[in-house]
Amino acid sequence: MFKIAVLPGDGIGPEVIEEGLKVLSAIEDKYKLKFDVKKYPFGGDAIDKYGVPYPEETKNACLSSDAVLLGAVGGPKWDDLEGDKRPEAGLLALRKSLGVYANLRPAVLYPPLKEASPLKNELLQEVLDILVVRELTGGIYFGPRGTVAIDYGFKAYDTEVYQTSEIERIAVIAFEAALKRKKKVTSVDKANILDSSRLWRKTVEEISKRYPDVELNHMYVDNCAMQLIKNPSQFDVILTSNMFGDILSDEASQLTGSIGMLPSASLREDKVGLYEPIHGSAPDIAGTKKANPLATILSVAMMLEYSFDLIDAANDIKDAVNKVLEAGYRTLDLGKGIILNTQEMGDKVVEYV
Amino acid sequence: MFKIAVLPGDGIGPEVIEEGLKVLSAIEDKYKLKFDVKKYPFGGDAIDKYGVPYPEETKNACLSSDAVLLGAVGGPKWDDLEGDKRPEAGLLALRKSLGVYANLRPAVLYPPLKEASPLKNELLQEVLDILVVRELTGGIYFGPRGTVAIDYGFKAYDTEVYQTSEIERIAVIAFEAALKRKKKVTSVDKANILDSSRLWRKTVEEISKRYPDVELNHMYVDNCAMQLIKNPSQFDVILTSNMFGDILSDEASQLTGSIGMLPSASLREDKVGLYEPIHGSAPDIAGTKKANPLATILSVAMMLEYSFDLIDAANDIKDAVNKVLEAGYRTLDLGKGIILNTQEMGDKVVEYV
Ligand SMILES: CC(C)[C@H](C(=O)O)[C@@H](O)C(=O)O
Ligand SMILES: CC(C)[C@H](C(=O)O)[C@@H](O)C(=O)O
Repeated sequence: MFKIAVLPGDGIGPEVIEEGLKVLSAIEDKYKLKFDVKKYPFGGDAIDKYGVPYPEETKNACLSSDAVLLGAVGGPKWDDLEGDKRPEAGLLALRKSLGVYANLRPAVLYPPLKEASPLKNELLQEVLDILVVRELTGGIYFGPRGTVAIDYGFKAYDTEVYQTSEIERIAVIAFEAALKRKKKVTSVDKANILDSSRLWRKTVEEISKRYPDVELNHMYVDNCAMQLIKNPSQFDVILTSNMFGDILSDEASQLTGSIGMLPSASLREDKVGLYEPIHGSAPDIAGTKKANPLATILSVAMMLEYSFDLIDAANDIKDAVNKVLEAGYRTLDLGKGIILNTQEMGDKVVEYV
Repeated sequence: MFKIAVLPGDGIGPEVIEEGLKVLSAIEDKYKLKFDVKKYPFGGDAIDKYGVPYPEETKNACLSSDAVLLGAVGGPKWDDLEGDKRPEAGLLALRKSLGVYANLRPAVLYPPLKEASPLKNELLQEVLDILVVRELTGGIYFGPRGTVAIDYGFKAYDTEVYQTSEIERIAVIAFEAALKRKKKVTSVDKANILDSSRLWRKTVEEISKRYPDVELNHMYVDNCAMQLIKNPSQFDVILTSNMFGDILSDEASQLTGSIGMLPSASLREDKVGLYEPIHGSAPDIAGTKKANPLATILSVAMMLEYSFDLIDAANDIKDAVNKVLEAGYRTLDLGKGIILNTQEMGDKVVEYV
């Protein structure tokens, strides 16, 4: 029996998680499965209850689970806390404690949602299906940092740091993923400036020799930010660092016009994974029933696929989501159609599953 | 007599510089002025001739000039050189030696070029006129860095570092610019993760108190990468660090569909400035006469305005460019119209000046 630690978190987190769990139940019924699902406090919610964003109890549960399903964290309420006491610090500690160094962020344009994309239709003739593979437990997110008083004011620093082994393992993930897709990896760095990027490029180059069938090209991050808009269908797998991946995956997701639809998986060598929608906690719409639960529902599908090898069940969910969209159902963020609220959208997916 | 050091550089650099100088001559004739214009080797061109990207002679000339006009640097030919011997190292040394910490990058959608923008027309109803104010002589571009051998492979690092005074002076530039525009500054950082960003945010907040008429809001860099595509007209002035500014200004420029049109100015406290098109050296089209010289021509206009206070002359150039576009003239990168090559476009602007 697979054990799933569920962290609803803040803002719309609990609302979308409810719908994800609804769909998970439907899968249990359909396949006569039983998952061991328990909720734990995390993020701002945990700060309010226990004073810390990632309490011991939550940590123990996550470390002994087969998968962690996360809603979203953060909100203005906790924005004035010190860096290491914020909801986001809990997210970083969660990723690090699980050791999930490989963050997979698919940015897919669902054909029924073309109109929701900000790009001109002629740029969307070809399929838009990009997988951003973002390194998640290294780089400037975790390097040495500090703030020191100097003669006039302060000096503050953060360190982007990567070592060969960290780059190798994330590169392997990207090349393996590319093998199952269009066999193209674009590695993004700033090697014309950064030492860490030059090591990144050299190491990726080395790993690529093991994958003669995968085409590798390198791109500077500034150029990539342009190319994503100019010609998004040139990309298959984008491989990049934690910081650049944060920026580029958000940009890529926006191109699809449906950031409320995009799931993510964070993985390590074994099958344990962390699954979360890529959208944030959206405090402004929390409680209004406007949140789109599809990203969370699709994160459940990724969990079934990557952590539990339940490929059929995962496909059932993906198919159901496609059919719901094709039938014209939308949440508010997706533009014109038959508008459903958060719960109704969850129910609709269950119906099609 | 204003002294201008001209650095044509690599790739299409020399070709677009020629057209910029042509327009500058036209201004000399029209206003009975005389500029002291001399060319110096820089970038890959200087590496080929002297083994270094920023030779002493060039440096002396730049440091004793009122303005520096740069084409573009870099190309595959020099890509395998060590970090500190590359054309880009020359660019960094140039910026640093001039002390031009304030990089102004306007991203403007020229109404006749709406069709060239990748964004859907409904997103372009309102004016798209963003000024990115990028810090240019600090941050991870100049912080401590290194690559060290470790047990397995290497470890490489770069340091993002900012001190109060650096942030204050660039913030002042942004607020002053906003006063002359729509009075809105969006400061972009990653304060939920980085110490340097938290100092950035606090310092910008302090400076903003001096500008009660300017609205300030803060945005995380990942969100900004999304918002630029989702709703670009929400922005007036974007104030950000060297690295984030590199990425976001390229993204913003691509939205206008006319990166070949966008100039930049890099300034310090006095009137000395460095002016360059934001596009790169485009080695693939060098020598084909396809390069768009308008970004360089508009950089000349910025030079006249910011370094020489020749506002009328600057406006003449801007008006001429607008008229040339309205009359339907285009270089290849700008889409359909009466297609001109590099020289013809330069001549056409001279005609309208
Ligand atoms: C909330 C924040 C710390 C986080 C990150 O930067 O990693 C988020 O933006 C993300 O991309 O998951
Ligand atoms: C060429 C490169 C070093 C440079 C930079 O990163 O600053 C360029 O991308 C720019 O934006 O001017």
